[in-house]
Amino acid sequence: MKSFLASIITLVLVSTSHSNAQINDSTQVRKIYDFYLEQSQAYKNLEQLCHTIGGRLSGSPQAAKAVEWTKKAMYEAGADTVILQPCMVKHWVRGEKEKCNLILSNKPKALRVVALGSSVGTGAKGITAQVVEVTSYDELEKLGEAGIKGKIVFYNVFFDQKHVRPGNAYGETVKYRGGGASRAAKYGAVAMLVRSMSSVADDEPHTGNMNYDTTISKVKIPAFALGYLSADALHAALQNSKGALLYLFSTCKFLPDEPSFNVVGEIRGSMYPNSYLAAGGHLDSWDNGEGAHDDGAGVVQCMELMRMYKTLGIKPKHSIRAVAFMNEENGLAGGKAYADYATAHNEKHICALETDAGGFSPRGFNVDTLNGLNKLVNQFHPLLKPYLIETITKGGGGADIGPLQKTGVPCIGFEPDNQRYFDIHHTAQDTFDKINKRELHLGAGGIGALFYLIDSHYTAP
Amino acid sequence: MKSFLASIITLVLVSTSHSNAQINDSTQVRKIYDFYLEQSQAYKNLEQLCHTIGGRLSGSPQAAKAVEWTKKAMYEAGADTVILQPCMVKHWVRGEKEKCNLILSNKPKALRVVALGSSVGTGAKGITAQVVEVTSYDELEKLGEAGIKGKIVFYNVFFDQKHVRPGNAYGETVKYRGGGASRAAKYGAVAMLVRSMSSVADDEPHTGNMNYDTTISKVKIPAFALGYLSADALHAALQNSKGALLYLFSTCKFLPDEPSFNVVGEIRGSMYPNSYLAAGGHLDSWDNGEGAHDDGAGVVQCMELMRMYKTLGIKPKHSIRAVAFMNEENGLAGGKAYADYATAHNEKHICALETDAGGFSPRGFNVDTLNGLNKLVNQFHPLLKPYLIETITKGGGGADIGPLQKTGVPCIGFEPDNQRYFDIHHTAQDTFDKINKRELHLGAGGIGALFYLIDSHYTAP
Repeated sequence: MKSFLASIITLVLVSTSHSNAQINDSTQVRKIYDFYLEQSQAYKNLEQLCHTIGGRLSGSPQAAKAVEWTKKAMYEAGADTVILQPCMVKHWVRGEKEKCNLILSNKPKALRVVALGSSVGTGAKGITAQVVEVTSYDELEKLGEAGIKGKIVFYNVFFDQKHVRPGNAYGETVKYRGGGASRAAKYGAVAMLVRSMSSVADDEPHTGNMNYDTTISKVKIPAFALGYLSADALHAALQNSKGALLYLFSTCKFLPDEPSFNVVGEIRGSMYPNSYLAAGGHLDSWDNGEGAHDDGAGVVQCMELMRMYKTLGIKPKHSIRAVAFMNEENGLAGGKAYADYATAHNEKHICALETDAGGFSPRGFNVDTLNGLNKLVNQFHPLLKPYLIETITKGGGGADIGPLQKTGVPCIGFEPDNQRYFDIHHTAQDTFDKINKRELHLGAGGIGALFYLIDSHYTAP
Repeated sequence: MKSFLASIITLVLVSTSHSNAQINDSTQVRKIYDFYLEQSQAYKNLEQLCHTIGGRLSGSPQAAKAVEWTKKAMYEAGADTVILQPCMVKHWVRGEKEKCNLILSNKPKALRVVALGSSVGTGAKGITAQVVEVTSYDELEKLGEAGIKGKIVFYNVFFDQKHVRPGNAYGETVKYRGGGASRAAKYGAVAMLVRSMSSVADDEPHTGNMNYDTTISKVKIPAFALGYLSADALHAALQNSKGALLYLFSTCKFLPDEPSFNVVGEIRGSMYPNSYLAAGGHLDSWDNGEGAHDDGAGVVQCMELMRMYKTLGIKPKHSIRAVAFMNEENGLAGGKAYADYATAHNEKHICALETDAGGFSPRGFNVDTLNGLNKLVNQFHPLLKPYLIETITKGGGGADIGPLQKTGVPCIGFEPDNQRYFDIHHTAQDTFDKINKRELHLGAGGIGALFYLIDSHYTAP
């Protein structure tokens, strides 16, 4: 009887304590969101980054300015320390504005193009040639040298709108942007074009990185993306006249590699200072826009973690890091540098989170199952659901934290509602005016609340 | 032993049959979304409605044109019948562009205002008076006649950004817009202003309806909304000089009531033609914008139900209705007329759905528990989750289907992600360019899939 009573008392105590913890967590999460919705400076910071610096491709003077700006902003947000982690980056420049003219009966019609990142230029005279259109690598292979030699290859592959998540449509089509040049060059193509990876039928061309695979072809041909409507126009012209000529001009090229940096803001943990929770976005962006959604949004959201801790007077147990990664767009030198630094300094990472899908309304997190992280985050789900964090799925990560993930760090990807992301991704339209303040801050709040909960409840497995 | 075996066989059969139904439903839902994401005309229809007709306040020539346009569009979408349900509507007109000048040391500074719907005008000379600022009805009551008589009352009440759902902030502040004039007039105020119910700190004034409560005051004073930044400027001026004068001018007024219509498109049910599933939005909109999110989006989403059934060759068991309600913004005559028509014709409604929270990315549905509808919809939830329908909550409805709900019809509210809604709600910025095609079509798809499932599986309780 005594032992039964003791059990009941224990049970009551345990459940009271558990219930108190829940109430405390719930109260604290509410305070965290109050901070983000009323006091966060993420939106103002992003406006500064976009409007005073703008596009900031790795190696550019703007990227160097962005590093300085971020260092200052991180201290202002409340960082105890800001570390600049060096990395060497490729320095590709777009040069003069690209040109593309469709020549029909000697009348040129201008089409909208951008050079793809890492592409070689056309030379001063440009390239004028017939165009051969394909919709897959299979078609390319079938045409072979007989059909392709001396021509410009046009990969006319549509973004599949049937995908609920437009990222999946991007995943299907980006292979032509990334690898299409060398595969066309193998058969003697003189240049290549892709239909922009776009979820909207406007005429903004979407740039993005490409790579030459010298195991496929040693010849490097210029590579471009056509605006969606320009791709339609080219397709229509080719239907009418297989002999239509296209003129392409670009002066893009690589300059010597440049030294650059990840900017890492840190609040030291009160109990486990050598254990880290890191959240990051990437500071570099394509040169044609302002890098607002991709990924200034992610950078300013993560910086806000420090302001949240300082403003609310919460002392994290573990060290909290906000990371502005360099060179996500065309090299991942920053992601590699961060992982190398962590290994060299014997840093233990409890988790690493990346936010690089736009500053939109939150939907959820993708979380690694490693070290029980997914299980832990699922326990927090009831606390986060009232704040639009509706899904906790398995998986998770991001390009910049990929190298860290390979060293065994469990990773998290922040998932916003990104129906609009691929309308503007890598275009001149990725500008600050596309950012909604509440959406940006609700996303940042989700990251802040999740980090608060992991830091408070994590125990080593 | 035999009975145990029989149980197992039964179990296998039941679960196989159940599983087949699930697979069929799942396949059909995927086909429905394929239609919406690739073939839906909702976006094109909304562009037409916004750009060829634009703002369409009840009683206006534009509203009459919108009725004609919608009737035609519903037949084009595949309606078997289009019913015009008559209703008499109030006909309020804004008149000349409103003026508001802050007079400091005789220098006028223009502030941005709009007259509130149903307000009287100021008269040709306008109104010039001192301003008294309050932040609640309590403050107003305390000031009383001594503090208010002969002055303009300014309700300076902020939209509370801490709410995760901005609709809740709207709900808290809209009472000043709706009822603030009569309460101020009771103490002798000569006009009233509200800070716009806005989630963004820009200077677009947000209109919306107000009512004079003659049980509180028989005097009708002109009522306006100030842009957020103009409200800030007025507040600042009053801090510096309590004697600051404000000049207000408006010529708004009521013209005689006008006959108007709900437009009801219908596909007859193959098994239960006198049982209805109705989905609607409202066709009328404020005059200052294009009524894109509020609520052209809802109208074109619901019209698409008919195109979905016709295109996919699905014959619904029950009759399916798309309703373009008239007069949601300032009278609800259409909502009442629909309910009266249903009663008069002895129509049985299995459910009624309203979409009037913007054409944004879907989040979920609020569903009545009546007649087991919430339970039924929850059974479909696994089928809808892959399409961003993440929450099925209890509750549901909308202003237009309120009168139907009172007759015992279980109602459903479509819930999009509406963080951006109250940035533009009732402003000149509620225009077609704020609509994202994928978001609009995913929302329409959710409604289409839900109606398909309810129609297929509903059995009378």
